[in-house]
Amino acid sequence: MGYLAEECGVFGVYNNTAIDSAQMGYFALQALQHRGQDGAGMVVSDGKHAALVKNIGLVTDVFHPGELDALSGKKYMIGHVRYATSGATNVLNTQPLVMRYQDGFLALAHNGHLVNSKALSRSLRDIGVLFQTDMDTEVLAHLIARSHAADMPGKIAEMMAVVYGSYALVIMDRNHVYGVRDPWGIRPLCIGRMENGTYILSSESCALDVIGAQFVRDVAPGEIVSIGPDGLRSYPQPQRSGGGICLFEYVYFARPDSTIDGVSVYESRFRAGQLLAQVAPVEADIVAGVPDSALSAAQGYANASGIPYGDVLVKNRYIGRTFIQPGQRAREMAVRLKLSVLRGQVEGKRVLLVDDSIVRGTNSIIIAKMLRNAGAKEVHMRISSPPVRFPCHFGINTPNQKQLIGAGQSVEDVRKLLGLDSLAYLPLEKLEESVKGSSCGYCTGCFDGHYPMNLAVCRRKCALQPKTKEGR
Amino acid sequence: MGYLAEECGVFGVYNNTAIDSAQMGYFALQALQHRGQDGAGMVVSDGKHAALVKNIGLVTDVFHPGELDALSGKKYMIGHVRYATSGATNVLNTQPLVMRYQDGFLALAHNGHLVNSKALSRSLRDIGVLFQTDMDTEVLAHLIARSHAADMPGKIAEMMAVVYGSYALVIMDRNHVYGVRDPWGIRPLCIGRMENGTYILSSESCALDVIGAQFVRDVAPGEIVSIGPDGLRSYPQPQRSGGGICLFEYVYFARPDSTIDGVSVYESRFRAGQLLAQVAPVEADIVAGVPDSALSAAQGYANASGIPYGDVLVKNRYIGRTFIQPGQRAREMAVRLKLSVLRGQVEGKRVLLVDDSIVRGTNSIIIAKMLRNAGAKEVHMRISSPPVRFPCHFGINTPNQKQLIGAGQSVEDVRKLLGLDSLAYLPLEKLEESVKGSSCGYCTGCFDGHYPMNLAVCRRKCALQPKTKEGR
Amino acid sequence: MGYLAEECGVFGVYNNTAIDSAQMGYFALQALQHRGQDGAGMVVSDGKHAALVKNIGLVTDVFHPGELDALSGKKYMIGHVRYATSGATNVLNTQPLVMRYQDGFLALAHNGHLVNSKALSRSLRDIGVLFQTDMDTEVLAHLIARSHAADMPGKIAEMMAVVYGSYALVIMDRNHVYGVRDPWGIRPLCIGRMENGTYILSSESCALDVIGAQFVRDVAPGEIVSIGPDGLRSYPQPQRSGGGICLFEYVYFARPDSTIDGVSVYESRFRAGQLLAQVAPVEADIVAGVPDSALSAAQGYANASGIPYGDVLVKNRYIGRTFIQPGQRAREMAVRLKLSVLRGQVEGKRVLLVDDSIVRGTNSIIIAKMLRNAGAKEVHMRISSPPVRFPCHFGINTPNQKQLIGAGQSVEDVRKLLGLDSLAYLPLEKLEESVKGSSCGYCTGCFDGHYPMNLAVCRRKCALQPKTKEGR
Amino acid sequence: MGYLAEECGVFGVYNNTAIDSAQMGYFALQALQHRGQDGAGMVVSDGKHAALVKNIGLVTDVFHPGELDALSGKKYMIGHVRYATSGATNVLNTQPLVMRYQDGFLALAHNGHLVNSKALSRSLRDIGVLFQTDMDTEVLAHLIARSHAADMPGKIAEMMAVVYGSYALVIMDRNHVYGVRDPWGIRPLCIGRMENGTYILSSESCALDVIGAQFVRDVAPGEIVSIGPDGLRSYPQPQRSGGGICLFEYVYFARPDSTIDGVSVYESRFRAGQLLAQVAPVEADIVAGVPDSALSAAQGYANASGIPYGDVLVKNRYIGRTFIQPGQRAREMAVRLKLSVLRGQVEGKRVLLVDDSIVRGTNSIIIAKMLRNAGAKEVHMRISSPPVRFPCHFGINTPNQKQLIGAGQSVEDVRKLLGLDSLAYLPLEKLEESVKGSSCGYCTGCFDGHYPMNLAVCRRKCALQPKTKEGR
Repeated sequence: MGYLAEECGVFGVYNNTAIDSAQMGYFALQALQHRGQDGAGMVVSDGKHAALVKNIGLVTDVFHPGELDALSGKKYMIGHVRYATSGATNVLNTQPLVMRYQDGFLALAHNGHLVNSKALSRSLRDIGVLFQTDMDTEVLAHLIARSHAADMPGKIAEMMAVVYGSYALVIMDRNHVYGVRDPWGIRPLCIGRMENGTYILSSESCALDVIGAQFVRDVAPGEIVSIGPDGLRSYPQPQRSGGGICLFEYVYFARPDSTIDGVSVYESRFRAGQLLAQVAPVEADIVAGVPDSALSAAQGYANASGIPYGDVLVKNRYIGRTFIQPGQRAREMAVRLKLSVLRGQVEGKRVLLVDDSIVRGTNSIIIAKMLRNAGAKEVHMRISSPPVRFPCHFGINTPNQKQLIGAGQSVEDVRKLLGLDSLAYLPLEKLEESVKGSSCGYCTGCFDGHYPMNLAVCRRKCALQPKTKEGR
Repeated sequence: MGYLAEECGVFGVYNNTAIDSAQMGYFALQALQHRGQDGAGMVVSDGKHAALVKNIGLVTDVFHPGELDALSGKKYMIGHVRYATSGATNVLNTQPLVMRYQDGFLALAHNGHLVNSKALSRSLRDIGVLFQTDMDTEVLAHLIARSHAADMPGKIAEMMAVVYGSYALVIMDRNHVYGVRDPWGIRPLCIGRMENGTYILSSESCALDVIGAQFVRDVAPGEIVSIGPDGLRSYPQPQRSGGGICLFEYVYFARPDSTIDGVSVYESRFRAGQLLAQVAPVEADIVAGVPDSALSAAQGYANASGIPYGDVLVKNRYIGRTFIQPGQRAREMAVRLKLSVLRGQVEGKRVLLVDDSIVRGTNSIIIAKMLRNAGAKEVHMRISSPPVRFPCHFGINTPNQKQLIGAGQSVEDVRKLLGLDSLAYLPLEKLEESVKGSSCGYCTGCFDGHYPMNLAVCRRKCALQPKTKEGR
Repeated sequence: MGYLAEECGVFGVYNNTAIDSAQMGYFALQALQHRGQDGAGMVVSDGKHAALVKNIGLVTDVFHPGELDALSGKKYMIGHVRYATSGATNVLNTQPLVMRYQDGFLALAHNGHLVNSKALSRSLRDIGVLFQTDMDTEVLAHLIARSHAADMPGKIAEMMAVVYGSYALVIMDRNHVYGVRDPWGIRPLCIGRMENGTYILSSESCALDVIGAQFVRDVAPGEIVSIGPDGLRSYPQPQRSGGGICLFEYVYFARPDSTIDGVSVYESRFRAGQLLAQVAPVEADIVAGVPDSALSAAQGYANASGIPYGDVLVKNRYIGRTFIQPGQRAREMAVRLKLSVLRGQVEGKRVLLVDDSIVRGTNSIIIAKMLRNAGAKEVHMRISSPPVRFPCHFGINTPNQKQLIGAGQSVEDVRKLLGLDSLAYLPLEKLEESVKGSSCGYCTGCFDGHYPMNLAVCRRKCALQPKTKEGR
Repeated sequence: MGYLAEECGVFGVYNNTAIDSAQMGYFALQALQHRGQDGAGMVVSDGKHAALVKNIGLVTDVFHPGELDALSGKKYMIGHVRYATSGATNVLNTQPLVMRYQDGFLALAHNGHLVNSKALSRSLRDIGVLFQTDMDTEVLAHLIARSHAADMPGKIAEMMAVVYGSYALVIMDRNHVYGVRDPWGIRPLCIGRMENGTYILSSESCALDVIGAQFVRDVAPGEIVSIGPDGLRSYPQPQRSGGGICLFEYVYFARPDSTIDGVSVYESRFRAGQLLAQVAPVEADIVAGVPDSALSAAQGYANASGIPYGDVLVKNRYIGRTFIQPGQRAREMAVRLKLSVLRGQVEGKRVLLVDDSIVRGTNSIIIAKMLRNAGAKEVHMRISSPPVRFPCHFGINTPNQKQLIGAGQSVEDVRKLLGLDSLAYLPLEKLEESVKGSSCGYCTGCFDGHYPMNLAVCRRKCALQPKTKEGR
């Protein structure tokens, strides 16, 4: 049983009026579905009792009219979409977690990954604590429940003082919904508001647009905010230096219509493409992107280079959970089912293909071969981010370093492996330029190994006190 | 969120050989299915890792070939069938509970109901403990995990010292499966053995017969037993006076082919019927029982009275979860669907119908009317247990005292309400006579209000110490 | 693709008032569920349009509140429960069949088996008819649709003139529901009535009791009846000599609370047990039946012999669709799961066990061994019907003749094979005596090979005329 | 019960080698999934028996490992994806249809819509034919089965002689898989081949690419082809004048990576965009397309106009079957969930949005409003096809003519209704120019009302002869 790394989406509402929180959550979680397709859940409350629905699957698999009716009419709501990188995919490992503690119920939904969860869990178990799930989110819950602080912001602050890692959290108790962002600001979290005074917390601003809320601001690194009958309140905690938002949120992860820490995701990608054209020009007949996430960068490249932009690869929109039988033929068909080539766009042409990143390189090899088979005269590839050389420890599921094609070899070696006429990456300083204006710094760990914290030290950190009824 | 009262079934195996524990569990839990149809689960282990499958529904709904394959080949196994009397019927409230604690994993399956779970839960929450389910079983797990005792029998014993109520438990850790029976002996638990040294724990002996195991003995009130590589071991704890096995296990709950505390359930029912004929004779043309549980008593009545035995009511064997639309007609059809009358057995006759108990009386009214409509000249009813006048606090889901038809009125009043020509119950001392030879006493609480413990006192009992790493 | 033999249940309603036909059908089909558990369906109509719901599974699996709501409020209804003896178990092979033909829609539900369906199907296909299912019911539909008769009774009569085999049919068109019973009367069908003038057709009278209808009479062999706005009408067709109701309906198949052709099923079984005691007495300490269908005969045997009646075998009431893994141990557990022995009833005793029939004998061998293992001093078996020596060609799924244990060997040989101290069957003339008073004769084919028709001749019979628009 | 109009996809294989036909079908049907998401099915055969799996839902919902295993290892296969425009969505109305007829089994899968199916069905029912589904495909099956022609191509030809409407068919009998395209060529069908001599039939060429087959040629209007042990054979039937391929296949329906009748779908859309820029220029700051189908035309428009191309609308990729509760708010959230605006691309700009068509106009109104709300200075719309003014009678589900926004009013009126600064459509002659080189003509019915056949006359056409065993 290992702790699970995960990239997920969180959402919370304090609803000032009769508008239905569960309905808002149902649509908002679908807008965040790209952040996790393995599980979904919502818990709602009227301040006294909490009602929970969660399960494995997509939001539309988990919530049916019956479930939505059962959750309707409540003022407080938090929700979660889950991406499971390892461990058993069952309902016990979905979120929100809902517990009873000293002051009633406590519900949590978490996006991120803790660095010292093993040390904390071991210490907690040594003093008799039981763990019922495989999720490091449970560590956070125990720390909050065991705090002697007088109120919830104080309890959360005590938890934050001992936890290392990334977390964007929404927490619900009987009186408020809380939003919490780790002191490094690695995972995004923002605040929205509706005209009637309803407040929203969301991993990405795209979910605010869907439910018709206005963007207020991002939660600051280290900040606790509460939404409730007393409006929006802020409980800032110390920020930690050396951190910043995950650059991969801009490169690949977030939706292009989201704005994170003041920077539009679409525009950052378009700018990255423009910068890429400047630093790595090439003579080509057509510029195309690998759908969907690299299309913006390809448009930027075309814009800056003057080479015509056009579609070259088509993505199948109706791929469900395809069952792939063993065998080489079945695997090949599965790849061609996802992506196909527009032969007429490629035949006899020099093709410049923009992708957002290369991780293992397996897909890139297949795509280059598909373009050659379709008659491309030359195949050039430009990547709108630097080579991924180091694992992520903060919630993105990167493979073993040995499998990172950019980790152990030169760009020229990778070019040959992929069978390309040329290959170039966007340098890290240019990627940072593409997101300039972001309100906090950046985590560049997967590109340069400079993590926001000393992992070896942090992994051992653990300072827990037993809780007694009398307090300290 | 209230603590759930429940009557359930538990089962555990330490398997000495290659015989598959999950397969044995699959059949054994079906043999115990009458003890709970709301959920089922099994956890298996090879001593290091625990694998769990559980869900709502019947055993055959929860376990399919895929699940059984995933669980196969392990030496340790515990399982549970659940009857949910209240609270949310979802997978989070099914058993076994599986947790990680200081020494690896800890799994529990529980039949029974705790009297002081609220007080214990409140104390535990006061010192920072989180509760993730609605089941009082979770209190037991926290108490065991927080114990400073050196080994698992010691931890279980510490838990037993502070808990009041009924419990038959199977517990699994990395080295053993444990069986625990509360110090009053209210819920049954027995031990079986196969020729190869495989040991079994089961709520009822009928499950031993199904898997081909021999009955060894009942677990004694207050006893902890362990089964594992070191065979069967016993760790007796103090018994509590004034208790005993639940009489309703014999009257209605257990399967007739089970033997509990040395007394055959079938024979106890047959004897109860014989005694009933002695204390409450009547002139009748036919003796019949209400199927299925009262047929044994009816045969005993016929045997002792000399009146011919015959079937009068037929039970539909294929009733699934019938959806009953609103309306009087639908409700009536639903009752007639379950039970129908053999008109030819009844027409023009004096019918003596034996039932095992009357709780609310609603079914008895309908049955009496059905017999009259079918032409019965007289309808007499004999009940093979005393009137239920008090609620059960130990796991059987009795209704509110106001709804107990035997609670507030005389037998004559009840007779009139039910529209019977005569009505008689078996006196409590005769019921006790029917199970004489049982190795511990009896709980007669629901009949006479004499519970094995002072409920008001016990409900407040709570003596918890915080656990520290250093121990005491 | 072979034609499927099947034993099924049919039900139909013409509803004179606002009472909901679909709701009545929902309960009635559950009352007939013992006749088939592989599929269920209902079609309802207001006279213009037909709405159909059918699927594989139990009635309670197929119909949920949504389906029942969609079917509610209609005057006409027919339904079916299906037992699939071979062929693909999918929704395409469930009933009712609903078709469009010259005069609107035509819906059929069928219990029985045709002898000349292959010849008829071949002839129909030769003139261009398409078959879309594996069910011989489809032959009946094509014959009705192709008839030139002026009205539906006429069309049905033309069909009856060319079809050989057993059939109890309910048919719905825009104006009526029809009931049809084959001219030999092999399968049962009866008529019920409610006070408001609503008429019912049902395979067995037990379904009338459930919905609160009064039994009117059985449909006569060869009779067509219609129910509709013009009340109950009869269109008698020629009966065929040499036929009669299937004796196995009384022996095993029908529910004991049904009355078929004037004879109570329970009473016929009780009488068979009495006659068995006269012709095959034995000295024993206890008489018991194999549950559930042989309990009535065992009671009759005890009544006539004076030997005490008691339960010896217990049937598990909660057996779902158990998945049995390969291997001898799993198979043995599966048998013990279904039936278990009351050891105390058997130990040291001479046990007389009554069963209703022996087909392959496999179960009887296991039961005899279980009784010996439980300590029975002697095990005697009495069968309340003659040996099954011939296959059924009229809808009951009998195995290959080689597998019929009673087909090729003497009773003494069978006794040895089953490991019994004595064995005796009820002679055929005594079985006929047990059902005396039945309004038509009996089909004794599976006992003595005297089928109601010459199978070899009938199988070839086929006389079809092409239908032209002008008619003949 | 009405006949259903539908647009669907068909696929067939004769497999010369051990490569698994069901596996190929599984991937190919997913590649055709955009042609229908309401149902899917496959039937396979070894020449003797046919095995069918079909159900409602996506291909990945219908086929699981168990189903694929059951279908594996066969040489012949046909499959279908279904779009249900009306009528009951249940398994009885999915395809392929599999029937038994004179010469064994007959299986059909159909894309298209018949004009005279009612007249044919009435005539068939008048001579005793039964219809078991609501699909006009069943008419085709009856006509084939009733033909007196000596072989299957002859039977199909007889059918084609009396049927009016569109159809791309794959048919399987014991010896061959057949492909049939209606004599007007309205629906597409093409032939592929693998190196080992395996032949393929597919609605679109994109499915050939996925399974690794080479495109051979399109099936000609009126052509019957067979694939089987004797290779590819052609049985041309008379073409009908005045017809041609449906222009909407190019405009919207087909996948961009398909080539139909010699013209690349992507290129035809790009050209349509270029032509649109020529005939309807506008001053704008950005050209964008409505995703996904109008992006190609937008790129063509940008290419020809010199206005920069960029994304403006983002489509949510994870929309499942969203349940929309009643109420205006829920409906608005549902629209915003599907499409969102990139505010930074729009703010203060003159936006030129290209869409492929306007049918009802409801979406266009919402999109225009979303762009205005996001700060667009001007919103211009260009449509890469003419106004849809007439219903389609050949398989595309067009609404009632009253709901066609382009049917009764001028372009200026529509512009005002949609709230646009300017609006222009591509003229029909320019759309035809964009697909020039197509090997047969075009059906322009929905644009100009010139259908390939006289609908009023054809609807009455029916000339059926009764089939007798002796033949004519």
